[in-house]
Amino acid sequence: MTAPLRLAIAGLGTVGGGVLRLLQSRHSEFKERAGRDIVCVLASARDKRKKRNVDLAGIPWADDMETIIRSDAELVVELIGGEDGAARQLVEGALASGKHVVTANKALLAHRGAMLAALAEEKNVTLRFEAAAAGGIPIVGTLRESLIAYDINAVRGILNGTCNYILTQMEATGRPFAEILADAQKLGFAEADPTLDISGGDTAHKLALLASLAFGIKPDLANIPIQGISHIAPQDIAFAREFSRRIKLLGVARRVGDAIDQRVEPAMVRLGTPLADVDGAFNAVVAHAGQAGPFFFEGGGAGEAPTTSAVIADIIDIARGNVFPAFGRPAHALRAARPAPAELIKSPFYLRFDVLDVPGVVAEIASHLAQSAISIESMLQRGRAPGEPVSIVMLTHECSHAAVAGALQVIAASDRVLGPPCMIPMEAG
Amino acid sequence: MTAPLRLAIAGLGTVGGGVLRLLQSRHSEFKERAGRDIVCVLASARDKRKKRNVDLAGIPWADDMETIIRSDAELVVELIGGEDGAARQLVEGALASGKHVVTANKALLAHRGAMLAALAEEKNVTLRFEAAAAGGIPIVGTLRESLIAYDINAVRGILNGTCNYILTQMEATGRPFAEILADAQKLGFAEADPTLDISGGDTAHKLALLASLAFGIKPDLANIPIQGISHIAPQDIAFAREFSRRIKLLGVARRVGDAIDQRVEPAMVRLGTPLADVDGAFNAVVAHAGQAGPFFFEGGGAGEAPTTSAVIADIIDIARGNVFPAFGRPAHALRAARPAPAELIKSPFYLRFDVLDVPGVVAEIASHLAQSAISIESMLQRGRAPGEPVSIVMLTHECSHAAVAGALQVIAASDRVLGPPCMIPMEAG
Repeated sequence: MTAPLRLAIAGLGTVGGGVLRLLQSRHSEFKERAGRDIVCVLASARDKRKKRNVDLAGIPWADDMETIIRSDAELVVELIGGEDGAARQLVEGALASGKHVVTANKALLAHRGAMLAALAEEKNVTLRFEAAAAGGIPIVGTLRESLIAYDINAVRGILNGTCNYILTQMEATGRPFAEILADAQKLGFAEADPTLDISGGDTAHKLALLASLAFGIKPDLANIPIQGISHIAPQDIAFAREFSRRIKLLGVARRVGDAIDQRVEPAMVRLGTPLADVDGAFNAVVAHAGQAGPFFFEGGGAGEAPTTSAVIADIIDIARGNVFPAFGRPAHALRAARPAPAELIKSPFYLRFDVLDVPGVVAEIASHLAQSAISIESMLQRGRAPGEPVSIVMLTHECSHAAVAGALQVIAASDRVLGPPCMIPMEAG
Repeated sequence: MTAPLRLAIAGLGTVGGGVLRLLQSRHSEFKERAGRDIVCVLASARDKRKKRNVDLAGIPWADDMETIIRSDAELVVELIGGEDGAARQLVEGALASGKHVVTANKALLAHRGAMLAALAEEKNVTLRFEAAAAGGIPIVGTLRESLIAYDINAVRGILNGTCNYILTQMEATGRPFAEILADAQKLGFAEADPTLDISGGDTAHKLALLASLAFGIKPDLANIPIQGISHIAPQDIAFAREFSRRIKLLGVARRVGDAIDQRVEPAMVRLGTPLADVDGAFNAVVAHAGQAGPFFFEGGGAGEAPTTSAVIADIIDIARGNVFPAFGRPAHALRAARPAPAELIKSPFYLRFDVLDVPGVVAEIASHLAQSAISIESMLQRGRAPGEPVSIVMLTHECSHAAVAGALQVIAASDRVLGPPCMIPMEAG
């Protein structure tokens, strides 16, 4: 039998602790699958003395990243997080010194994935990140190794459990975003600082990785327009229901000619399609795999067990000796993505305007839309007391994102329009 | 760059032809992913002269399996099918002579998987079969390599597109099984001889493979009770709707204590759960992955593109040099499954009795059920003309499969009960 795989782990939070515990408790099971022992030869975390639910007896402690980088570990498991700092130092240093790396660090990879993939290849080691997108759903491996016979047309996903939980709760209770978020924080479903989640930033990190795997492009965070969910009002969710839709924060990447459109934004998905049924903190991905058709994957996207499951799978595959390029193709073959021009990004849109209930306001909005060649499919107006603000909802026929955004800018400048208009694309299908 | 991978392909039907065409048309794409050329050095099919939509020029032809087995191919792709005959000869011979094998042959593997896995290991080659279960859905790789951190509790799947198409059409039209089947055959959605599909046999082959991967047991077709869909009547489907359920042919494998229950049978799944929404010829699998929770996978389960997609993924992974045991663990570690005793297989049941509308018949049925300690949750009777047969539907509380089957045997013997009673488990969740 092959010699044991020597593993170092950095970061002993929920996931790191979970990984180490499983490596201990399921040692013989994993040994059978890997064909060799997996031994933890070095552990590290910010605070050595913190009480943890894991047995660290007998595992040497590393006080800094250099110690891990210079150690005789063959594989470094980085679960520190953050696009810079210790995590970056460790991953770069470990790869440069010829160590395999398993990481759940979507921020680091979304920013520096192509460079790190090239470094890994140069050193003939492997960089794995199944846990970095959609948690326990094996979508990284699926895009990298399974759905490769045909060109992928599009990948669409619910990639942030916190946002999906908040939207699900807003719908269930009719209560506004801020209240649901505050509750979610109290219950531990949202971080104390939820900015990265609710801004769509976390979804964008994950989308950049999935798009790279699906289309053979470099992760390209800079070219992903990002919209979060904090502007979604209970009435938008209620209106969506009237159109047999639900609002989901989606990361979408798709071919548009020979360019790739990538974007993170709330979208109205049709009831009865798989993404519409994804509730609570679950994640899900639809991959349109050319002639092989659409595939749908759903499961736990965060938290200890799903994330640990993904990290363990990467570790065991490395123990088996399976080394290949991080994004499924040689790093030099990854193209720089050409972003699709906004004029070519088309869909029907849901538009909501909060306006003063005075004569002529609908005509004013409609005429601005008409000037941008945006044609209206239907309109809804909810009456309030005369003189008070009312919400006007318009559904457009298919038109370009650029045209709508341009028209809304003009409309928002009207002193009869209160606050920025809300614009949500209606997903096809 | 590594030398080209020399591949031989046997069977040039829909899938074999599709694989060969893609290996030609996407040659450089696959070379980039595999890190080496993949060249077809030998092809074979029953009828050499048959017109095919694939370019065979320059590919040497093998007239028999021995020629392939004795060739210098490193990888044999078996797409002949059938549990015996040429397919078996080729797979056994190829492995024995140290060649990797990729196959979509669920029948062969369900019958002889453990032996073939052992043979592959002995020769240090790999035996791959992603296309043998659920077509394009990468469920074989997912169970073998991804969802391995925790013990899997259960795997449940819609694994036969023909059956799911027929049940979907029966529901949409209200027409009986035989008519829908005849139409499906005319439209090419069902085989000329559909026995293996509608009997549940094909589902059982696939289930045996998924259960082996999920639970580390030898594929164990002999211990899978199999029920098909030909006894399902339009009224069963209509009744299911009244209970917010749909009838699906499921393959189910689950832990029951330290035994494994495996069975293929129509089941009533609850509307709003993922399996209920799987329509037409799609396949889907739910894997209950211990603490990591349930995962759901849906996609094309048959036909050229989804099956070709799975075969290509296996070929490229072998070209990359990734060799490991067929069922994810060494063949010697696969346990013989201990079937779960029927007394321990519990669920609520839907029961339908077609009876003569005479006084006392309900009392007679109810008393037989009571004698087997089966308690009734609710009852429905649809009136017809007096003296004509009527359908009585009963939903039971949770009880054992064995108890219900026993009671139904007694009830069926009554001369007031017409035809065999229909018994369908109600899936939890």
